[in-house]
Amino acid sequence: MAVGTVVALAAQIGGAKLADGLYRIRGADLAVVVNTGDDYEQFGLTFSPDLDTMLYTLAGIASPSAGWEPAEETFALFEMLKSLGGSDRLRIGDKSLAAPLLRSGGLYDGRRLTEITLDFCRHLGVTARILPASDDPLRTQLLTDDGALSFQEYFVELGCEPEVRGFQYAGADQARISDELLDALYAKDLEAVVICPSNPYHSIRPILEVNGMKELLGRCGAPVIAVTPIIGGNALKGSAAKMMRELGRDVSTRSVAMEYLRIIDGFVIDEADAELADGIRASGIQVISAETIMRTVDDRVALARTVLDFAQSVRDAKAREEEG
Amino acid sequence: MAVGTVVALAAQIGGAKLADGLYRIRGADLAVVVNTGDDYEQFGLTFSPDLDTMLYTLAGIASPSAGWEPAEETFALFEMLKSLGGSDRLRIGDKSLAAPLLRSGGLYDGRRLTEITLDFCRHLGVTARILPASDDPLRTQLLTDDGALSFQEYFVELGCEPEVRGFQYAGADQARISDELLDALYAKDLEAVVICPSNPYHSIRPILEVNGMKELLGRCGAPVIAVTPIIGGNALKGSAAKMMRELGRDVSTRSVAMEYLRIIDGFVIDEADAELADGIRASGIQVISAETIMRTVDDRVALARTVLDFAQSVRDAKAREEEG
Repeated sequence: MAVGTVVALAAQIGGAKLADGLYRIRGADLAVVVNTGDDYEQFGLTFSPDLDTMLYTLAGIASPSAGWEPAEETFALFEMLKSLGGSDRLRIGDKSLAAPLLRSGGLYDGRRLTEITLDFCRHLGVTARILPASDDPLRTQLLTDDGALSFQEYFVELGCEPEVRGFQYAGADQARISDELLDALYAKDLEAVVICPSNPYHSIRPILEVNGMKELLGRCGAPVIAVTPIIGGNALKGSAAKMMRELGRDVSTRSVAMEYLRIIDGFVIDEADAELADGIRASGIQVISAETIMRTVDDRVALARTVLDFAQSVRDAKAREEEG
Repeated sequence: MAVGTVVALAAQIGGAKLADGLYRIRGADLAVVVNTGDDYEQFGLTFSPDLDTMLYTLAGIASPSAGWEPAEETFALFEMLKSLGGSDRLRIGDKSLAAPLLRSGGLYDGRRLTEITLDFCRHLGVTARILPASDDPLRTQLLTDDGALSFQEYFVELGCEPEVRGFQYAGADQARISDELLDALYAKDLEAVVICPSNPYHSIRPILEVNGMKELLGRCGAPVIAVTPIIGGNALKGSAAKMMRELGRDVSTRSVAMEYLRIIDGFVIDEADAELADGIRASGIQVISAETIMRTVDDRVALARTVLDFAQSVRDAKAREEEG
């Protein structure tokens, strides 16, 4: 069987790890759609933390211990910023500022975020296409008793303290899907769409809320497979479990599956949650359990292979259904 | 006699050196008016090279070998910029980016350049007031056969190659003098205005061209003393001599004096040019010669003291004239 193309939806470090596993198997046949809902402006520059994490990870230059920044980061700029009276809240690294600088320069010159990001890929030797969710501004707002916050305010300034009551995705209904992303999702040989293990509320949902995105995923013909970010009632990283609790949901992989209901065909849960599989299947979603914790690069590749095999079996089942 | 206040007009490294000499003598009684005509935008950020050079110099953190940047500069950001496809023309340092970042953030938030600069002074413990020529945009354009160029384009991108036919000072006629600068120039105890040894065309002239500045200097009551940037027919640093030649002027300290005619009361030439003193005096300008090359901090202080003493003698002569 000929090998087709894969589209991954991802954000944050967990998402970047699985995307990296897929990239190591599929190379240039992978397109990764990255959340831009947590982008923010500072110093007049546009910061896209999820895009940069993905870029560093696929380029193999991410810090092993702090995957959101390049390895061996230095902080000379930050020390100088502080001595000039700048805030010490956001500990910005010297290397980490390069992409926001060039990105902002490009946007200032009227270039599209997608073009700029693909240029970064090319220069770093990343053959996969890293594609922003949209070239138009998209900003997730966390609704809290303190008002509507950006993820940056919530995470950096307020230490994830405020209780989260809900989310809104400013700009999503006007945001357009780029031609590059349309090409990836309309590809004749598309064999799977993979929703990587990322926070469902502020990492994946903003991508899905881009005008027409859910419909496009439904029509693309390839199975949509999600991988849980929740294991045994806890998030591996980040604030997903806390948010679930505050939103009144069970902190469980099942809540993630329900978040993706009518969008996904298959769901990968962790082996630790194997007993939850039947309950999720009752909603019409196919389920497998696997080792979803990615400690090593081999783990990334193994999980990616499991996901692609699962997509293949979902596709085969669909084909049999249509034949029969 | 009570010691009064001093205002210096300055830019670039030579200007910063004499300003530093004045600062070491007068401390908080000094205000330095710095050229902003060579400011430029890159990555959407506002770079003010002359302001930053002055800031680093007076704060005592300037590199001894590259006075336009902080000592022990590093280039992690620049290396990353290049690997992302950025230009390798402008070798921007990690520490050097801090001030432009904070400045741009402040301007973005609607603060005035003067407030931002005075904040930098306060945080770095600089008690003198470093004041931009104006809070409004001021941009020197070098008129060449290649068109009108910013100094940044001329210097960094074109290596000072194009012949300079003239200058224009975009924005100068609409630029306003800040309240802080008015306060400094209207100070009752102002005892001297010192034009530091900087390029007369793109460092000092833009300050003088700010709407109302020349009139204000004429009315401030204190003697205006300039120090030559040209010694023995050559500029110590920079492209002043080349520009003079291309503008059809003699490359001579006398041409600098003529540039400041009707603005200055006194002119300090280098001892090497002592034989030119009488020619300049013929234009009604008082002249002294001194050692103007500042190799050490002691040289800066010595020249500053010479200039202040000269200002005193110009003031005394004026007073005698008025009495007599």
